[in-house]
Amino acid sequence: MSTSEFHGPRLYVEATLAECSSIACTVEQANYLLNVMRLGSEDEILVFNGRDGEWRARLADVGKRRCALECLEKTRAQKDGPDIHYLFAPLKRARLDYMVQKATEMGVARLQPVLTRRTMTARVNVARMRANAIEAAEQCRILWVPEVVEPAQLDAMLNSWDSARRLVYCDESAQVANPITALTSITRGPLSVLIGPEGGFDPSERAMLHKQAFTLPISLGPRIMRADTAAVAALALVNAVLGDWR
Amino acid sequence: MSTSEFHGPRLYVEATLAECSSIACTVEQANYLLNVMRLGSEDEILVFNGRDGEWRARLADVGKRRCALECLEKTRAQKDGPDIHYLFAPLKRARLDYMVQKATEMGVARLQPVLTRRTMTARVNVARMRANAIEAAEQCRILWVPEVVEPAQLDAMLNSWDSARRLVYCDESAQVANPITALTSITRGPLSVLIGPEGGFDPSERAMLHKQAFTLPISLGPRIMRADTAAVAALALVNAVLGDWR
Repeated sequence: MSTSEFHGPRLYVEATLAECSSIACTVEQANYLLNVMRLGSEDEILVFNGRDGEWRARLADVGKRRCALECLEKTRAQKDGPDIHYLFAPLKRARLDYMVQKATEMGVARLQPVLTRRTMTARVNVARMRANAIEAAEQCRILWVPEVVEPAQLDAMLNSWDSARRLVYCDESAQVANPITALTSITRGPLSVLIGPEGGFDPSERAMLHKQAFTLPISLGPRIMRADTAAVAALALVNAVLGDWR
Repeated sequence: MSTSEFHGPRLYVEATLAECSSIACTVEQANYLLNVMRLGSEDEILVFNGRDGEWRARLADVGKRRCALECLEKTRAQKDGPDIHYLFAPLKRARLDYMVQKATEMGVARLQPVLTRRTMTARVNVARMRANAIEAAEQCRILWVPEVVEPAQLDAMLNSWDSARRLVYCDESAQVANPITALTSITRGPLSVLIGPEGGFDPSERAMLHKQAFTLPISLGPRIMRADTAAVAALALVNAVLGDWR
């Protein structure tokens, strides 16, 4: 929560990280390090790739528009987050950027846009979502970047659902008023959290969600919330009851 | 959470709301209703003032740049939210706007900017905060607008604290890892929730918070969160355990 633990810039890289390994920076990374952060030869940053933990690395081979990174030492061992897939009806651009950053901060493993009957935005820029997820992971010292997958239709997803993964969805008409009581009723394991579109679920979609054995509706209180607010609220409760906030 | 319950435009007004009462709209309100929403004579909207519940009202006396509202019938009785004060170190403009909207959606009664040693932004535009709170309350069908007060110094606040009000603050170094367990340990009643600055609390501030009998530190998990994310997460947990989400 505090940023006091930050150790200067932190970069997500694709390359394998190991003792003495050297990483060639992309043009964007070099520009960020040299021109935005104004770093130079010998300056140190943190890098991670979602597989090999977090490493302290030093700028090397610094040119006008290029640089490399030399791995010095592992600062944190790789640790995966809770197995939570975040399913959401896409929002308009600014709110979607925000929601992707928030879900990443909440530590989800996968971001899955879901198209419902009342989804306002059908087109989703997956590359932009991934860029937002990477930026949030870099800034919030997360050791992985959530997988960002292509949009899918809700009913198609439900028809081919892996029943070993519980699906928690937010529903004002949930039977149990207290979301913590509801979440406590299910055993820990693979989980998906679904936030519906701003227009709410279509009645037939709600009925379809309701009748599945693997679903759990939870209520988020008496007030209407925007979808991006509901996302953080639901993921906080899920992390606290079933995730890694315990 | 869903916006499917919206009944067209919804306006916060200062005036008293009662059967047949007529309200003169401000220039801004008239512009919003006539030019932005393109409403005309006889069109209906919802109004609330934080005291008299929510009313269905009809546009009347429509002029080029002015209109009035006639109260028709009460659609919801006044209901207050949980007695939660949200205390926060101010952020830069866009994030502050966002945080104010989010805290309002979470139903807090008061927004209190708190100045700490590591607060980045000392200047706070209280009028802008209030405008954001009103907009969020209007859009999310909340029946009140949180009171927005002037910034205060953290240590001054702690020195003159009403000990009947518990102060929950977010602290990575909280003794109890599980925030729900920690929150369950206190009895319901007046509550304040404090989110520190992006730079974290100063050690002396943390020590001062720690030694007060009325404070409760909670952890928000192993990951760093931005302050506006932590705000929604903490308020969701507090609402679920001690507020009106039960």
